[in-house]
Amino acid sequence: MQFPERGSLHEIEEGGRLMPLFDERGLIPCITQDLVSREVLMLGWMNREALRKTIETGWAHYWSRARQRLWRKGEQSGQAQRVRRILIDDDQDCVLLMVELTGGASCHVGYRSCFFRELDWQPGQTDFHLTYLEHRKVYDPVKAYGPPAGSDAVQHARPAED
Amino acid sequence: MQFPERGSLHEIEEGGRLMPLFDERGLIPCITQDLVSREVLMLGWMNREALRKTIETGWAHYWSRARQRLWRKGEQSGQAQRVRRILIDDDQDCVLLMVELTGGASCHVGYRSCFFRELDWQPGQTDFHLTYLEHRKVYDPVKAYGPPAGSDAVQHARPAED
Repeated sequence: MQFPERGSLHEIEEGGRLMPLFDERGLIPCITQDLVSREVLMLGWMNREALRKTIETGWAHYWSRARQRLWRKGEQSGQAQRVRRILIDDDQDCVLLMVELTGGASCHVGYRSCFFRELDWQPGQTDFHLTYLEHRKVYDPVKAYGPPAGSDAVQHARPAED
Repeated sequence: MQFPERGSLHEIEEGGRLMPLFDERGLIPCITQDLVSREVLMLGWMNREALRKTIETGWAHYWSRARQRLWRKGEQSGQAQRVRRILIDDDQDCVLLMVELTGGASCHVGYRSCFFRELDWQPGQTDFHLTYLEHRKVYDPVKAYGPPAGSDAVQHARPAED
């Protein structure tokens, strides 16, 4: 499966053909959203192969920048994403997936959404404190991935993006 | 307004303090979503100043990669974004804004959402055709920005990110 070549600005922005732009690293950002609730679950990155495999299989695949390898979401944790809809933005440099979660969670920390914290904030006023929006983990990442890394130095041993 | 320094992995992922990661270009991606409908409107990029100004003013600011300058959304088109909520993801390398649109649109092509096209697709099967999800532009980008650029060579004359 070869993606169509990038066309003119008009074809990209207002045309009827997918022409995704992969950046200088060969990656395109991908926003993943719950199909029904529209909750944003995560931002991932895809290379050509990840987008191709997502389209071919209907399961979300991403490129892990930390591990520098293709990764099927949930391959280790069981928290997979069944893809139902694939959208593209105006300049075709961002993908949007609408998915159903097979295990009820998307975040490697154990929560449903990666965006489980909100800034306490009013215009002009914040002390950078974050409030938790989720109060219980959906799954135990220690059971899914093994004991947590003891320090930042070994964080790459842990699949931080799954 | 100085953002807190990045802390340990545990502080970043499970702590109660904002510690945003700006990449090697000094940028962090920002997903912008409608406060009420939860529709994803756009993916933008912020440098430290854009995030600071967003927090200070309550109006969405981004960094324009094409124009290499700070940009208040809607400064030219009038299609501004009043920020109501600011979320951060697990590893704090992506911001999520929940906004109200002052003009009903977010996309510089004239549609409500930048994601106004969907891939015609079933697992394993696509000819890369895109279906339009919106059928009428909310505003006329020619009126907002002037005549469209005649070719890709002059596309930077047009504020492609506003």
